[in-house]
Amino acid sequence: MTSHSDSASSSTVTPEGAAVPAATPAATPHEPTSPVVLAARRARLAADEIAPLPRAAKDTALLAVADALEARTAEITEANAEDTARARAAGTSETVIDRLTLTPERIRAIAADVRHVAALPDPVGEVVRGSTLPNGIDLRQIRVPLGVVGIVYEARPNVTVDAAALCLKSGNAVLLRGSSSAYASNTALVAVLRDAVAGAGLPADSVQLVPGESRDSVRELMRARGLVDVLIPRGGASLIRTVVEESTVPVIETGTGNCHVYVDADTDLDMAVDILVNSKAQRPSVCNAAETLLVHRDAADAFVPRALDALAEAGVTVHGDERMRGYADGSKATVLAATDEDWATEYLSYDIAAAVVDSLDDAVAHIRRWSSGHTEAIVTTSQAAARRFTQLVDSTTVAVNASTRFTDGGQFGFGAEIGISTQKLHARGPMGLPELTSTKYIVTGDGHTR
Amino acid sequence: MTSHSDSASSSTVTPEGAAVPAATPAATPHEPTSPVVLAARRARLAADEIAPLPRAAKDTALLAVADALEARTAEITEANAEDTARARAAGTSETVIDRLTLTPERIRAIAADVRHVAALPDPVGEVVRGSTLPNGIDLRQIRVPLGVVGIVYEARPNVTVDAAALCLKSGNAVLLRGSSSAYASNTALVAVLRDAVAGAGLPADSVQLVPGESRDSVRELMRARGLVDVLIPRGGASLIRTVVEESTVPVIETGTGNCHVYVDADTDLDMAVDILVNSKAQRPSVCNAAETLLVHRDAADAFVPRALDALAEAGVTVHGDERMRGYADGSKATVLAATDEDWATEYLSYDIAAAVVDSLDDAVAHIRRWSSGHTEAIVTTSQAAARRFTQLVDSTTVAVNASTRFTDGGQFGFGAEIGISTQKLHARGPMGLPELTSTKYIVTGDGHTR
Repeated sequence: MTSHSDSASSSTVTPEGAAVPAATPAATPHEPTSPVVLAARRARLAADEIAPLPRAAKDTALLAVADALEARTAEITEANAEDTARARAAGTSETVIDRLTLTPERIRAIAADVRHVAALPDPVGEVVRGSTLPNGIDLRQIRVPLGVVGIVYEARPNVTVDAAALCLKSGNAVLLRGSSSAYASNTALVAVLRDAVAGAGLPADSVQLVPGESRDSVRELMRARGLVDVLIPRGGASLIRTVVEESTVPVIETGTGNCHVYVDADTDLDMAVDILVNSKAQRPSVCNAAETLLVHRDAADAFVPRALDALAEAGVTVHGDERMRGYADGSKATVLAATDEDWATEYLSYDIAAAVVDSLDDAVAHIRRWSSGHTEAIVTTSQAAARRFTQLVDSTTVAVNASTRFTDGGQFGFGAEIGISTQKLHARGPMGLPELTSTKYIVTGDGHTR
Repeated sequence: MTSHSDSASSSTVTPEGAAVPAATPAATPHEPTSPVVLAARRARLAADEIAPLPRAAKDTALLAVADALEARTAEITEANAEDTARARAAGTSETVIDRLTLTPERIRAIAADVRHVAALPDPVGEVVRGSTLPNGIDLRQIRVPLGVVGIVYEARPNVTVDAAALCLKSGNAVLLRGSSSAYASNTALVAVLRDAVAGAGLPADSVQLVPGESRDSVRELMRARGLVDVLIPRGGASLIRTVVEESTVPVIETGTGNCHVYVDADTDLDMAVDILVNSKAQRPSVCNAAETLLVHRDAADAFVPRALDALAEAGVTVHGDERMRGYADGSKATVLAATDEDWATEYLSYDIAAAVVDSLDDAVAHIRRWSSGHTEAIVTTSQAAARRFTQLVDSTTVAVNASTRFTDGGQFGFGAEIGISTQKLHARGPMGLPELTSTKYIVTGDGHTR
């Protein structure tokens, strides 16, 4: 194979051209006075400083963060009270307010999470690949920090600390762009984080809240190519779509989960009911909850009546195709008529779309057409069906005889996660510390030339 | 750590929202009649078909391709003669025409490369990570094809075959968008490839030339999100910049190489001269050739005069800073005055920028400021200097006492490469077959619920 590096490039790089790569931030065209860009520049410098730090220095800072969160609980809950009062005055739902609320107990739990991150192995420096080449050169591919990580997230102040802890542990500087509804809480939390980090001898600017509460600050983050190495949008689909469409900074999409449970012709009915109800109703508001049930026609007579009753008992409304609705009579369930919109919807509620299919391949075709590529489960007693389903379904996670709810960094034993990637490049599925790294090759010779 | 999948999503996915992920191509908004989009749709279907194929099926197709290239050499060279005649009439340089030219001998070499790719291990199905979780679930992370790979490349017809072979081997469908100046050659080559692939029982549409020779076809590829999984631009910096700025399809940047050789205070002078000249002049037109020399001031008196003479003998023009120019008198070298443009330029010619620096850290600062993050080399006898340089320099490859020219998939022993990534996400440095894959998790239980 004639390799690329032995090929001539077809054009000379102009000075402007050389400004494209991440390594030349100074030449990228940003408004020099924007507070977001200035924050990103400080993050870049901090990133250069923390990238080579050994594990002990990073863990010391993380333990200082945990201690400071506990010691300064009062000022954090006070700031949080501002946010919750504002939310309540605006008529925000109690579910959302609950997510926004920080109590001393929750802050203790967050501090415990930070100590847990400190206890995880350092991904930086891990040798991913290594060999001695035929000419005697030693080749090693090692993990290195990404650099500056930007995170845009929803109104959950615990994410502020989680994301900062994971980024610090992996040697990255972080730019946190939380929801404006949590601005007071995030401001207080980041003040505590920065003081603790600086107290441990690390640059305070390795943790920064992105200035400004408007959408403009997200837009500036998206255009800070060369300063921000990756942008991770978390939360609603419209945010993720905007970032994907408009960002010149590389993006990792997370968390859109239109997950399916497929009940095969050959199946254990009790197991299928358990997995269905658990996947849908154990916690419907999360991305790995099931949103569509597909049943093989040969299992439908035996399975669907039991499934409809079990879903009804769990408080779930079914949006069924015509064949599914045929089982509604005599069932406890409400079965509404499903439209294409139902197949596409991530309900995140006590609703499920449901259809009877003619074959495993038809189930796969439905999933290919409608799934967001997060998690799909098959319940089957057939080894051949399990094998075919796992081969043909192309999602981050394919579950065989297990609930969709297992797609989770904690469940997978990663210790921590910064999100669940639903894209194919770089990271796919739950992202732990290794996914917050890149790699570089170290070539060591003793005067080798070609 | 409260994991993301246990967090509530902040908004419901609309049907439009659900159209964002790659898994729902049908819902993405493309002009339905565009030939590029239609080609991408056919590629998507072909990708689904070849993804689960076992290695034997793919290797059979690759060997058929190699045989067909040799059997149909005449029609390929005939088409190629059209391209070269057109190029010659347009006054194209003989270097470029040489790159464009296909001879029977070169076609035999290309066929041999294809057989070599067939002999490489199949990356698909490789278990990257695996364990039994505490609850008894079996977790495996396996490599899967990316899906549809788009490649935009320069006027080198051998890339058409190389890229197709690498994509087929890794279970991906490929959309080839070569240079318009090689259109006749590429059309002939792709006809041979498609016939051979189809003859081996694989879908012909797993290899397609992107219709149309205008820039519009690149633009349509860049917007075919949901149909194309990754776009790899090769070639000039302006193409790469355009793709990075405008593509909504995920991109892997390749090949911009503003590489540095740093000669440390403590150095073996003979080794330093050899590595410098080899890095710069062994093949100046390639991305891993050196473009800037940095010399520690303590080595300058002993090293620079020898370096200037050696560069002059190799035909290299030096663009030096003031201190470097101080050594020009009495040397055989031409030393022009360097400007900031020189530090930023990837010459790809017999030119090198050169500066004297006060310390290793100053060399690192210069590299951070100007490098494209491809490859940087240090020549030193000091273990401490080697260690600090490899820690602080953040490029795809850091070479210690070895030429920059080793950054290459073939040299690294990967067997083949599709380009050299100069970005941090997904792949960094020479990209072989594993870099053309994503992963998915297989979760196997026996009725596990949470």
